[in-house]
Amino acid sequence: MVKVPRIDIHTHILPETWPDLKERYGYGGFVSLHHGDGCNATMAIDGKPFREISDNCWSPERRIEDCEVSGVSLQVLSTVPVMFSYWAKPADALDLSKILNDHISEVVNQYPDRFLGLGTLPMQAPDLAARELERCKSLGLAGVEIGTHVNDWNLNAPEVFTVFQAAADMDQAVFVHPWDMMGQERMPQYWLPWLVGMPAEASLAIGSMIFGGVFERLPDLRVCFAHGGGAFPMTVGRFARGFEARPDLCAVDNDVDPRSYLGKFSVDSLVHDAGALKYLLNVMGENRVVFGSDYPFPLGEESPGHLLDSMPDLSDAVRRKISHDNAVEFLGLDPLSHAG
Amino acid sequence: MVKVPRIDIHTHILPETWPDLKERYGYGGFVSLHHGDGCNATMAIDGKPFREISDNCWSPERRIEDCEVSGVSLQVLSTVPVMFSYWAKPADALDLSKILNDHISEVVNQYPDRFLGLGTLPMQAPDLAARELERCKSLGLAGVEIGTHVNDWNLNAPEVFTVFQAAADMDQAVFVHPWDMMGQERMPQYWLPWLVGMPAEASLAIGSMIFGGVFERLPDLRVCFAHGGGAFPMTVGRFARGFEARPDLCAVDNDVDPRSYLGKFSVDSLVHDAGALKYLLNVMGENRVVFGSDYPFPLGEESPGHLLDSMPDLSDAVRRKISHDNAVEFLGLDPLSHAG
Repeated sequence: MVKVPRIDIHTHILPETWPDLKERYGYGGFVSLHHGDGCNATMAIDGKPFREISDNCWSPERRIEDCEVSGVSLQVLSTVPVMFSYWAKPADALDLSKILNDHISEVVNQYPDRFLGLGTLPMQAPDLAARELERCKSLGLAGVEIGTHVNDWNLNAPEVFTVFQAAADMDQAVFVHPWDMMGQERMPQYWLPWLVGMPAEASLAIGSMIFGGVFERLPDLRVCFAHGGGAFPMTVGRFARGFEARPDLCAVDNDVDPRSYLGKFSVDSLVHDAGALKYLLNVMGENRVVFGSDYPFPLGEESPGHLLDSMPDLSDAVRRKISHDNAVEFLGLDPLSHAG
Repeated sequence: MVKVPRIDIHTHILPETWPDLKERYGYGGFVSLHHGDGCNATMAIDGKPFREISDNCWSPERRIEDCEVSGVSLQVLSTVPVMFSYWAKPADALDLSKILNDHISEVVNQYPDRFLGLGTLPMQAPDLAARELERCKSLGLAGVEIGTHVNDWNLNAPEVFTVFQAAADMDQAVFVHPWDMMGQERMPQYWLPWLVGMPAEASLAIGSMIFGGVFERLPDLRVCFAHGGGAFPMTVGRFARGFEARPDLCAVDNDVDPRSYLGKFSVDSLVHDAGALKYLLNVMGENRVVFGSDYPFPLGEESPGHLLDSMPDLSDAVRRKISHDNAVEFLGLDPLSHAG
């Protein structure tokens, strides 16, 4: 088994502190962070705690220690989706995006051999988003992370297309991550918004971009969906059958078979199952599955890369693609500078 | 390739006519059927058309003709989920269930070599549902079809357990089918409630029954989920990881690993993709994938059984299981009487 440098394209980071956003913007709904002892903190919205995190969520040094253990060469940093704040006033979401993007850029600049960054954008205001995307590029970020939808817009909306177009023009990568999960009001128990809602969100995002003709119109756009594309890979036959049986519903904006786009976009490898990962490679193609762990969150891979390491029947070539080459291609990196 | 009698466990049927339900119950929201020429009809709710159907949806003879062509030996009939009417007053849903169940029973009695039946129940009233289940059994039906949720109850609700318990006690099969899709308000385009929402519904149902301990408490209950279990098979690793990482959220009602229930429930084969079907067989086990076509609806298999026929590398043993043996087991049939 050949040892290849491992790039983890799906990791989340927060600043250790940020301003009081309710005070800054004059209304509530934003996330605040409350530190306990040195290692732990509580995320809250309007004073209501909703998630405990540890210093691996904000400390670059702590993250690097973990990477040394797991063998991850390079983490791609993105914000935590609850920070997207697409519901906020555009100028405020832009301001918050700048705070988060400046932070990620600082961490990347501090440890350029260990981190790359993806920014966040005020997607509810496409023009502001496109401008912030340009600023992200100038900061040295590799692209952006966006949600699986933007409030009432799915990813086929013309407003969102403005941002995709800008990303394609600027050669910036787009990582699509679930947030604001459909059906969560119907799933009060068992963490089901994360287990059922998130995979449905990824499928919604992929379906919207296929049928909305986004991939068709922007063949050079580099997009990757979190969590192995969620439900989509298992339902690709259902999508194709829907397209075939009811073009009056499915083919109204794009008359190309959904299967044509397999191989044109990427998914991360986070499916927590060797059989599912093999199926994923078959569906998406071995150039379009990119290692991602969801570090440092509990639904991520506890030891990033362990699943790949536990699959000895993967060829060295495929292992190298998932662990490294596909990330280099998705992120648009200079292969020489990240050869490990 | 050996020829085995093919049992299609997932087909829908409606009576050719039924009473005016708004008039009968004194309020609206129910489905009515408006015949055009002899072969076509329009389904409507409160005068608003929502689906065109053909005589293969109500004519047993027309269905038998299609079966002769596709090679289906036996269709298992169930109602169309939009008829569930779980939102209606319990007595009215019971009355409607009786109309539908009597009709299915009549068709089965008319052509006992070609059809088996699954009833529908007023699930919003578990005691009435359990009594109607008993009546279904006495009518000779093999079990019932229920929704992936019942209004605000997921399938782990104690109310729903009453019905599952009754089904286990009466040795009746339960076929679980999506309806009232989560997120549909967010998916106005591209048939996405069918392509994204339905697979999420199946995953919601399976997750609720696993984490709610339904499979644990009723090991003899025979359950099958439509559409290959939707998103669940692709996300089984995610479910297991959730259970492992956050038992405080996932293991509150049942502390058994979700993977333990693989092999304990069935899914139909309707995934429209050879690779997905093979993956499904690997995940669920070759005894727990049951041929189903969704006949006569457009998102079903156009030529029921074609996918299986197009997979020459399936062994005869597995083909026989999917096409016949697994249905015999799921439905609790006397193997001798349906040997084909």
